[in-house]
Amino acid sequence: MSTATTHIRPEAMQALFAPGSIALVGATDKSGWSLSTFDNLRNNGFAGPVHLVNPRTEVVHGQRAHRSLTDIGERVDMAYVMVPTPAVLSVLREGAGLGIRSYVVLTAGFGETGPEGRRLEDEILAFARENRLTVLGPNGNGYINATAGTTPYGLPIPPPLIGGPVGVVLQSGALASSILSFAQARNVGLSLLTSMGNETMISVTDVIDYLVDDPATKVIALFLESVRHPGEFARAARRAAEAGKPIVALKIGSSTLASHTAQAHTGALVGDDVVVDAAFRKLGVVRVRSLEDLIITAGLLAQTGPIHGQRIGVVTPSGGACEVIADRAEQEDLELPAFAPETVARLKEILPGFATVQNPLDVTGYVVVDRTLLSRALEVVADDPGVDAVMLLSDLPRLPPADLKPTLEHFAATAQRIRDAKRPVIVAGNVLTDITEVGRHVQRETGFPYVVGGIEHAMTAIGAAVRWSRALPEVTLAEPAETGGPPVVRGETTGLWTEHRASELLRDNGIPVVPSSRATTEDEAVAAAAGFGYPVVLKAVADGLGHKSDIGGVRLGLDGPDAVRRAHREVCVALRERGLTGIGTLVQPQRRGGVELIVGVLRDPAWGPVMAVGLGGVWVEVLRDSALRLLPVDASDIRRALGELRGARLLEGARGTEPADLDKVAEVIARIGALADGLGPHLESLEVNPLLVRGSKVEALDALVTWN
Amino acid sequence: MSTATTHIRPEAMQALFAPGSIALVGATDKSGWSLSTFDNLRNNGFAGPVHLVNPRTEVVHGQRAHRSLTDIGERVDMAYVMVPTPAVLSVLREGAGLGIRSYVVLTAGFGETGPEGRRLEDEILAFARENRLTVLGPNGNGYINATAGTTPYGLPIPPPLIGGPVGVVLQSGALASSILSFAQARNVGLSLLTSMGNETMISVTDVIDYLVDDPATKVIALFLESVRHPGEFARAARRAAEAGKPIVALKIGSSTLASHTAQAHTGALVGDDVVVDAAFRKLGVVRVRSLEDLIITAGLLAQTGPIHGQRIGVVTPSGGACEVIADRAEQEDLELPAFAPETVARLKEILPGFATVQNPLDVTGYVVVDRTLLSRALEVVADDPGVDAVMLLSDLPRLPPADLKPTLEHFAATAQRIRDAKRPVIVAGNVLTDITEVGRHVQRETGFPYVVGGIEHAMTAIGAAVRWSRALPEVTLAEPAETGGPPVVRGETTGLWTEHRASELLRDNGIPVVPSSRATTEDEAVAAAAGFGYPVVLKAVADGLGHKSDIGGVRLGLDGPDAVRRAHREVCVALRERGLTGIGTLVQPQRRGGVELIVGVLRDPAWGPVMAVGLGGVWVEVLRDSALRLLPVDASDIRRALGELRGARLLEGARGTEPADLDKVAEVIARIGALADGLGPHLESLEVNPLLVRGSKVEALDALVTWN
Repeated sequence: MSTATTHIRPEAMQALFAPGSIALVGATDKSGWSLSTFDNLRNNGFAGPVHLVNPRTEVVHGQRAHRSLTDIGERVDMAYVMVPTPAVLSVLREGAGLGIRSYVVLTAGFGETGPEGRRLEDEILAFARENRLTVLGPNGNGYINATAGTTPYGLPIPPPLIGGPVGVVLQSGALASSILSFAQARNVGLSLLTSMGNETMISVTDVIDYLVDDPATKVIALFLESVRHPGEFARAARRAAEAGKPIVALKIGSSTLASHTAQAHTGALVGDDVVVDAAFRKLGVVRVRSLEDLIITAGLLAQTGPIHGQRIGVVTPSGGACEVIADRAEQEDLELPAFAPETVARLKEILPGFATVQNPLDVTGYVVVDRTLLSRALEVVADDPGVDAVMLLSDLPRLPPADLKPTLEHFAATAQRIRDAKRPVIVAGNVLTDITEVGRHVQRETGFPYVVGGIEHAMTAIGAAVRWSRALPEVTLAEPAETGGPPVVRGETTGLWTEHRASELLRDNGIPVVPSSRATTEDEAVAAAAGFGYPVVLKAVADGLGHKSDIGGVRLGLDGPDAVRRAHREVCVALRERGLTGIGTLVQPQRRGGVELIVGVLRDPAWGPVMAVGLGGVWVEVLRDSALRLLPVDASDIRRALGELRGARLLEGARGTEPADLDKVAEVIARIGALADGLGPHLESLEVNPLLVRGSKVEALDALVTWN
Repeated sequence: MSTATTHIRPEAMQALFAPGSIALVGATDKSGWSLSTFDNLRNNGFAGPVHLVNPRTEVVHGQRAHRSLTDIGERVDMAYVMVPTPAVLSVLREGAGLGIRSYVVLTAGFGETGPEGRRLEDEILAFARENRLTVLGPNGNGYINATAGTTPYGLPIPPPLIGGPVGVVLQSGALASSILSFAQARNVGLSLLTSMGNETMISVTDVIDYLVDDPATKVIALFLESVRHPGEFARAARRAAEAGKPIVALKIGSSTLASHTAQAHTGALVGDDVVVDAAFRKLGVVRVRSLEDLIITAGLLAQTGPIHGQRIGVVTPSGGACEVIADRAEQEDLELPAFAPETVARLKEILPGFATVQNPLDVTGYVVVDRTLLSRALEVVADDPGVDAVMLLSDLPRLPPADLKPTLEHFAATAQRIRDAKRPVIVAGNVLTDITEVGRHVQRETGFPYVVGGIEHAMTAIGAAVRWSRALPEVTLAEPAETGGPPVVRGETTGLWTEHRASELLRDNGIPVVPSSRATTEDEAVAAAAGFGYPVVLKAVADGLGHKSDIGGVRLGLDGPDAVRRAHREVCVALRERGLTGIGTLVQPQRRGGVELIVGVLRDPAWGPVMAVGLGGVWVEVLRDSALRLLPVDASDIRRALGELRGARLLEGARGTEPADLDKVAEVIARIGALADGLGPHLESLEVNPLLVRGSKVEALDALVTWN
């Protein structure tokens, strides 16, 4: 598929999504798509004229059809194109001549089918660019602008279409219907839903940009098969974060990243999907794992905005639910702190004597007798100074009660208490069942807030919302200022820089490196060892030598001159036998104890330099225990990355080692990141392995750099 | 709360759940519970008389009330008791005198409130036992026998109540309503739903036993706060497995297991919740993580029965859905194998030319034109010899179409193809939305099967069903036969047996142990070392000495007589300084290389002996990377346990080590398990740490036994 690389102007996007008149070109009673599009436009409030174009039929969908766009004889703002593949370009030609600027192309058979289709698609793109047309698709079902009631969309839209704050962008045609159904079932209103098709001209990021500017949109929900233009995506995501609009994304499938350089160990650490994780984290994009969570999380964030803090007060009518919530809260890193003494005292006044006053709170089955119990308890818990938000477990009615009035009064009173609460209140139901017609009615009439569907998905969504809120300030910050000038680099930046040159590069740029001395003779090696004091380490040096240990080129714990001489001699023999040049050894003091880290930076073809931080040895080789960050990265984010490691406790002194000075460690790793970032696209990879940590002593013991 | 320890006779359970007449004792217009129970009995088909008893009111719920049970003057099969707490016993007394055998006690205020309540509860239990009464509750809402339409249940039952194959047992009152709503939304029919209350007399296992015998029940769904009688539960679970009835359980909260002995390292490995995991696995209980998955998984298993194999053929109308399914299948260890050539050829005949024929299969948006495409593709895929089951993505209609007939015909035809398919077919919808009235109608009229709610939950349920099916034969097998006679045990089984005695115990029972020799003098130590050959290891020995390394009592790599003498001397001095008796050393050959395992057996107060298998060193200490199994355990299950370790690749030779002979390793570990199991309840813990594995050489290097 061809892909756009130029921006679409905002005015062009606005024109596309708000036409005053629409022509359905290729409309026919024989096509379900045509019928659906026509019905959708008629049934959802589109007020302008809908013209049908069919050169061979006089009446389509019970309405007079025109033979061509020209025959319409009226101003047309947008053409919805359903003609056969080879005819699409001529429709665009005719339309361009008539001044029609906006097009939705449903027709398939383009780039997705092979080279011939791609050629046609390229022609369309070239023509559209030349003539300043705006084309959504081809091979997409169109869009649903629920805010405006404008729905040029080729699949049935089940009534009612609910307008609201969530903008949805989908790289999938068929799933749009599921998203629509599910949003309706959650009573989550949509501003715009766009089915992207081949993204020939308009890409996901163009629609994100539109939604960031769209006053009706508070949250942007994405279904992504691939992130086609990471740089563009990052820019659009930052714009969204600056506007305070969360992006929630379901990113599926494995991407097509090129394989990584085999030379650097860290290559094994970087899987496509984890890079996407790292990128989304950096960009403040909430990554979800299911279609349900996409809409549920978007709906929650639209309701609450940022939730500043992970301390949740929970109010429920059920002990069982409390335990389910407590289990899930732990998994989501949410805290359920004990209530303050005054909260406990006030709750005891309200609740029946047999209730246990604690967080999570079960107001008991006595709600059957007094249904205000829940909202009165909510009021008290929302006053607790120790909670950042309140979760209220309350389902909407599913079936209309015999008398709706008391129900409406109850929900109106609760809604008022929620509005008056001093903390954000998140309402969740017990299980994920539809909000039915009566539920929607109650919400509409009483202003009762969004109800997150079911404890399970609610906890996932609350966890995601809290993490997003925490990350937001960092995303919206400008890129970190460069620390000092460009990196100091000596020599020609080509090929592989092994230990000696790589260590020099680190040292030149303020990164602590174990002292070392180059030796070409046994005497030089012994002299160097004497200078450092025994025991020492001796390592092989030769041009282009990668992993030294594979040829026995790393000798540890040499405890006297004889051992050093013997080691130097043996290593040099081994190197010479392999026909290597520039041979010799590197002598270093032997370090003991501490924890070994690996810090690697790799250039991901899509997302740019990615840093992996992990613990050495089995941790990285067998467990693949590493944390990833896109560069640039600051020390505080590296501290968080270290905390994510499964072996993090080792750094805290778990096995009798000296606890690491994590600030110091993070600072050194940040410097490595800044260096790698400063070296620019010419750097293929940079690996420090190991970076030895002994309390506040942090030292690179070995390093490797590859240039491309 | 008091808890039952005796079985309830099956006939008594049957009588409880199938009364011909019911008295509501304490019925009053003032109570929502009373009104709900009365309405429930009237609205769901209970055909027998419902008598109301209230000593102070003549008319209750618009019906004449009796002053007492005696006043009814007719045979009563069951009393539903809602009187104040202190009056419950007198109701039972009166009822027993009248020959009423079955009781549901809704009244609360018993053991859950404190010692006084517990005393009342104990009185009720004693009276009931003495008089052979059957009592469900107290503090429970009763039950819903949907098969019989008998619903003595204290909370509203939203219509329609759907009878069917899933029996539900809940240790929670309030969540029963959520379960009911959700089952209805999934169109999952229930046989019986029981809200247990305090389980004073009838416990969860009594109801499981009833459901195993109940012909209407195919699957048993449990909501558990605690497993009160693990032995009873295990017995009931085995009965269910033998009857081919899956148990699906949501087990929440942290249990109250006593803390484990601090002496054995492995204590850190055994968390309550992971022991429950291990127990459920052994018993073939499917553990789920949410209320939604409880019902969804039960519904699936009721539809398909066992699914023999993890190779799934997937048929969908959407490329996006295919990718979501592929992502989730990998996480659930499900395979989506390539189709056989004949399947591909047949599919190509059916599908439009632009379709890509692969598994998972997207039949393309052309279904809009030809809706039979999906079921015709299903027919072909179900013939594929390489798949064990087929997943068909298809939603039921949500809104009634203008003309229902073609819809019914379509679903009837698809249902027929599903029935005719050579493999089990699992139908799943895209997202978790309710099955609405029209959907239920379509299922009822066409026999269209259960539709699993949404891809996300469907994949979880399919994964669980496949794993349950795989485990089933092992659960239904009788307990493994004892291998040989009772273990050989020398000496008094008290206190702590450190290395010397523990190793002897292992050796006596056929477990390979590194050779060792006890030394009390330097000369003896040197003689032993010479016998083994250098280098050797020397370890401290003293009565009651636990972790030797803490006092420098483990000396490795001693490479000559002098080193051995010095080590022996220093170790003995250290032991003597600590005032220990029975001191000396143990000399062993030094082993090099290999992978160290830890095998620990601990007695869990609830579930009995639990074996933890893990990799040594950081693996267990920092990562807590271990796999748990309840004893007895056989070698094949231990092989699976080893495969679950995150560091499993180490055993396969990941870091250049010799690949382990896993059959041999599993066999030795199984012998350790058999020994620990054979030692009986007197054994508190047994730990082999490390168990060294070098290829096919497996040897215990150290061990520790605690007796209670």
